[in-house]
Amino acid sequence: MSVTRTNPVQVSEVGGWDAETDVLIVGNGCAGASASIEAGRAGADVLVIDAAGGWGGATAMAGGSLYLGGGTPLQKACGIEDSQEAMYAFLKAATGPDPDEDKLAAYCEGSLEHFDWLAECGVPFEAKLWTEPSWEAPSGYGLMYTGGENAHPFNDIAAPAPRGHIPHMEGKRPGERSAGWVLMRHLVATAERAGVQTRYDTRAVRLVVDGGRVVGAEVASFGERYFLRARRGVVLSAGGFAANRSMLVQHSPRMLGNLLIGTDNDDGRGIRMGQAAGAAVRHMEAGQAAFPADPALLCRSLLLDARGRRFINEDTYPGRVGQAALFQQERQIFLLYDDAINEEVRQVAGYAVEPTWVSGSLAELEQRMGIAPGVLAGTVEEYNAGAVNGEDPLCRKSARWLKPLEPPYGVLDLRGAVFGVFTTGGLHTSPQGEVRDLEGEPIPGLFAAGRTTSGVPSWGYCSGTSLGDATFFGRRAGTSAASA
Amino acid sequence: MSVTRTNPVQVSEVGGWDAETDVLIVGNGCAGASASIEAGRAGADVLVIDAAGGWGGATAMAGGSLYLGGGTPLQKACGIEDSQEAMYAFLKAATGPDPDEDKLAAYCEGSLEHFDWLAECGVPFEAKLWTEPSWEAPSGYGLMYTGGENAHPFNDIAAPAPRGHIPHMEGKRPGERSAGWVLMRHLVATAERAGVQTRYDTRAVRLVVDGGRVVGAEVASFGERYFLRARRGVVLSAGGFAANRSMLVQHSPRMLGNLLIGTDNDDGRGIRMGQAAGAAVRHMEAGQAAFPADPALLCRSLLLDARGRRFINEDTYPGRVGQAALFQQERQIFLLYDDAINEEVRQVAGYAVEPTWVSGSLAELEQRMGIAPGVLAGTVEEYNAGAVNGEDPLCRKSARWLKPLEPPYGVLDLRGAVFGVFTTGGLHTSPQGEVRDLEGEPIPGLFAAGRTTSGVPSWGYCSGTSLGDATFFGRRAGTSAASA
Repeated sequence: MSVTRTNPVQVSEVGGWDAETDVLIVGNGCAGASASIEAGRAGADVLVIDAAGGWGGATAMAGGSLYLGGGTPLQKACGIEDSQEAMYAFLKAATGPDPDEDKLAAYCEGSLEHFDWLAECGVPFEAKLWTEPSWEAPSGYGLMYTGGENAHPFNDIAAPAPRGHIPHMEGKRPGERSAGWVLMRHLVATAERAGVQTRYDTRAVRLVVDGGRVVGAEVASFGERYFLRARRGVVLSAGGFAANRSMLVQHSPRMLGNLLIGTDNDDGRGIRMGQAAGAAVRHMEAGQAAFPADPALLCRSLLLDARGRRFINEDTYPGRVGQAALFQQERQIFLLYDDAINEEVRQVAGYAVEPTWVSGSLAELEQRMGIAPGVLAGTVEEYNAGAVNGEDPLCRKSARWLKPLEPPYGVLDLRGAVFGVFTTGGLHTSPQGEVRDLEGEPIPGLFAAGRTTSGVPSWGYCSGTSLGDATFFGRRAGTSAASA
Repeated sequence: MSVTRTNPVQVSEVGGWDAETDVLIVGNGCAGASASIEAGRAGADVLVIDAAGGWGGATAMAGGSLYLGGGTPLQKACGIEDSQEAMYAFLKAATGPDPDEDKLAAYCEGSLEHFDWLAECGVPFEAKLWTEPSWEAPSGYGLMYTGGENAHPFNDIAAPAPRGHIPHMEGKRPGERSAGWVLMRHLVATAERAGVQTRYDTRAVRLVVDGGRVVGAEVASFGERYFLRARRGVVLSAGGFAANRSMLVQHSPRMLGNLLIGTDNDDGRGIRMGQAAGAAVRHMEAGQAAFPADPALLCRSLLLDARGRRFINEDTYPGRVGQAALFQQERQIFLLYDDAINEEVRQVAGYAVEPTWVSGSLAELEQRMGIAPGVLAGTVEEYNAGAVNGEDPLCRKSARWLKPLEPPYGVLDLRGAVFGVFTTGGLHTSPQGEVRDLEGEPIPGLFAAGRTTSGVPSWGYCSGTSLGDATFFGRRAGTSAASA
């Protein structure tokens, strides 16, 4: 049997336990940390292991946005009205097809309480709203739109509200520690106060089962193997599989050749350990796909497909644009803009993007782009005719971003660009964090949360739904494991 | 434990065997029948079970096309030149992203031998080429294009050749027995000659394992349970999961609400039994999606997206158009045509399709279609301008189908139409038919073929690749199981 096999081992084959705990948590990102807090507070002995040398996982590298709503104190302090119903209606539309409605309902119902819980863990939020389209808000802004709530088609589906809650970080600078790190720091400090134990540089190898019940795990650390007993349950919170090429090939080949958002430990091992113990998976092809250009440029430009036509309102959530561009257009896309847009972006974003080609002639540009003659002229004519009246009948971009293009035009060729990707498919779990088998029944003793599972970002994704889902259902997995 | 659980049972928990064989084959469609022939010929005792009351499965309802090439006797008799290299280049492009290149290579290399094998089993083919775009050829035609080989973009990738080999059926009439039934009839007769035993009305419940090795299965028949020992191996050839709503929800929600091509026994049980024994799955979101209108109408019309623009050459394989329409356009499509096209289709197909709306005014039509003003006029103008010169620079439809549209125009609203779907995702197997676990290693004693596996139609699909793959790799699974 190879070192990498994840097939579970029967407890009868385990010579003895090297350590015992009530709840064993595999992975100390925000899902594992949240699980550990609740399990510890429920009175369980809790041990969290992580393959890395410390806590954080992909969370510590993330923008830190948590998707919360329904009228949180932060929303209120920013003068934003919101309701649980609007949040549910939006998420149902934006995270489909086929969102898990039970999880969505629980998530929206529990959102206010979850905000309080995060605040009580010490996670700081600044009551200041950021409204420019961008991936992250600058330091000092705690709330932003992170899902296209105020853009077509969602602004017709539910009353728009910004729901991206961003932990505050003093003097945040690009390339330095992120707001996700701030979130993690407070979660692990809270876990420590709850008596949670940790072991780092410790990788889970396979689960130990007693018949059909999960009772522990075999782990590896610095070349040695150990058996850890979990008297109540094991929580798999070991991240996704974007760093595992062979799993991407099997499940989501369109994500190959992009930029991994996450760590090398997002190798899908948690998912495979669960599967090997009988778990079902869900939506393994799904993933976040960050659009490979600045949202400030995207929303002002014309995004074109390989045939030179627009296909989506450029002002919606840039991850939604990214999914459309990666999964449907297969990365064959261009941005078309002009000098005025370039100058606006320079002012807003602090830099401008050099176009691949510049020309006063659309005919010349479409030749370079490999587009049929006349299509680009039609696209621009149609756009300009609407823009003059502040209308975009084709794609419904908001009037805020509509301005007729003027020559010379610039084209940014994004056909070779890489998208920032992570996987959102994973183990099929109940809203209580129980891992489900192939017939939908819970596997005794096995729980999971975060990107090891399929959760709120079922197929469609909005910033903040991954950390939001991971912390929210991480807590539930911890509670369930402690009482198993 | 519920009746439906697929978790394997350890042999130590099995009281005794009700019957023994060398090779147990689960499902008697064309994959299982092919496996049974080769296992029987290899000298093994073979038992094939099927949940239905007789042989056939989805194969017996299928058009019967087998994708073969490289210069088969049938191709030669029809005056068609082909090469193994052209077949490989085409399939690599048409069945991606991420085709299994090892399987593709084996499939193309073995295609001539596989044709001979089918002929030797008695499967009859008529050496007559059918060239009209249609799902099936009329009785008497044995060869047709079934993958868009002679259309953009594939005609630039590989020398086009028709490769859909259709078993001959006297007096075939719509709604009656299909050419797939003819294929099955000859396969099961050959299996019988090879000494293969069958049990019908017998459903596999779960595998029996001895440690990590598969050694049999528990089956159910008329309310009774039996344990069947398989001394050498079990072959899972139990079809796909298009009839299992909860698996579609988990893996491929866009296929929901369509028309199942297959039988009620395509419930994914074979896949789940494999998974429960540790198998990996591959591309579970993938599937065939037959376009919901006659190919003769499709290739002559303008296929429009929800915004009123064309998005694919309408003369390519209608299953390829179907995948684009279902998975990328989410079924928001229309066909636009005129009286001349309607009349041509009536002559070729024998009937015409009543449009949803008819008007001489494109402005009126786009209003009914909910399309932005002016877009339809632009689409038709662009199409007509090219068609006059026999060119389609936008989508590269062949000159054969290009004719300027003239008013009055008809629009067929296909937004509520259902696609004919079946799943092509399934167990991850080696080119020898061994089922692979989550780390890519073979699971001892377990083999699979057909739509229980992910095979030649990896993501992209062409007619004939499902039966072709199922018979070709079914044989290999049977051979492997007999020698295990």
